Amino acid sequence: MAETKASDSKTPDSKTPDSTRRSERSRRAIYDAALALVGEVGYARTTIEGIAARAGVGKQTIYRWWPSKASVLLEAFVDLGVRAGEALGGDADSVIPDTGDLEADLKLVLRATVDEMNDPGYDAPSRALAAEGVVDPELGARFVEQLLEPQLRLYVDRLSAAREAGQVRPEVDPRIALELFVGPLTHRWLLRTAPLTHAYADSLVEYAVRGLAPR
Amino acid sequence: MAETKASDSKTPDSKTPDSTRRSERSRRAIYDAALALVGEVGYARTTIEGIAARAGVGKQTIYRWWPSKASVLLEAFVDLGVRAGEALGGDADSVIPDTGDLEADLKLVLRATVDEMNDPGYDAPSRALAAEGVVDPELGARFVEQLLEPQLRLYVDRLSAAREAGQVRPEVDPRIALELFVGPLTHRWLLRTAPLTHAYADSLVEYAVRGLAPR
Repeated sequence: MAETKASDSKTPDSKTPDSTRRSERSRRAIYDAALALVGEVGYARTTIEGIAARAGVGKQTIYRWWPSKASVLLEAFVDLGVRAGEALGGDADSVIPDTGDLEADLKLVLRATVDEMNDPGYDAPSRALAAEGVVDPELGARFVEQLLEPQLRLYVDRLSAAREAGQVRPEVDPRIALELFVGPLTHRWLLRTAPLTHAYADSLVEYAVRGLAPR
Repeated sequence: MAETKASDSKTPDSKTPDSTRRSERSRRAIYDAALALVGEVGYARTTIEGIAARAGVGKQTIYRWWPSKASVLLEAFVDLGVRAGEALGGDADSVIPDTGDLEADLKLVLRATVDEMNDPGYDAPSRALAAEGVVDPELGARFVEQLLEPQLRLYVDRLSAAREAGQVRPEVDPRIALELFVGPLTHRWLLRTAPLTHAYADSLVEYAVRGLAPR
């Protein structure tokens, strides 16, 4: 229905302010449609056609911008992450604060992650994509490389800074240590073994930070 | 093909030694077929008919013993776990040893878990079932209740014993603490973020046990 409003009729080079705004609107509508659809029907049954119909754009608009369903979805998730970072008031490149208090900083981040995992708008599509990555190694690798590793690097940076500040033992490997925080959270989220609460996030941080600190 | 050899023609009460042996053989063949199939084609495309054909039994044999595909698979996994426990030389009810050295005992168990996760015969079906549980809350709940929680309880028991022995602080909750071990392992396994090695398992145990211990 919004076909005429979208930038379908423009060439990609016609970057007038109006067409840029319309492209941006279409892109956002496509992201939202892709995330909603994959959350509702799962990865396998999400199609480019379905995303286009829901976004109110022609499917050629999607094919022009992305080579595959996996590409649209991964980009939609990257965008979701950027928006979540902005909503937290942080700049997207450094979402883990460094106040000098490692435990307090990690509690803040893990509590925000808990809130995100409990948010149906994040939970449903993320769960669908994660499940598909579990059984599809190629998609899983893209998921890890494009979505997960950039987040994990923020933990590596924060833990490395804490190590330099003497709050983490010199022999601790930050790439392993970060998994003491994200591993349990993800385990509880994906397998739904027990409720994800702020108190749980706090306990994880207390137990693990103590294990990393010098005596 | 093995239809005539299976116990199909017997009533369930005819427990002569021969029919019991044949039933046991059919049951094992059905478990093996179910695990192989779900690992190859995924949960959604695994059918009772497919399992029956691969096991060489009539599908009525399966319907007589199990109400659904999920039930066959969950039982096959329980059986796989029991056999893995036996192969480790332990008795199935207490796979975590208690030598008095918490760190050594957990390293042993986590290394064995790493080996299991790296074994294609375990990896493929477990991954398929876990992925389905991620997006199917009802199956996920059965998976957790029947397969995962009994394993987690072994950690609760071992950590509680360590707490009583003064090796874990009194205020530590064993049900949360165990996630410092199983969470990261499962995260690495399901998302394939990095190789699962014994050295990795050892580091996890060293970091986490230190966080649980009194100073």
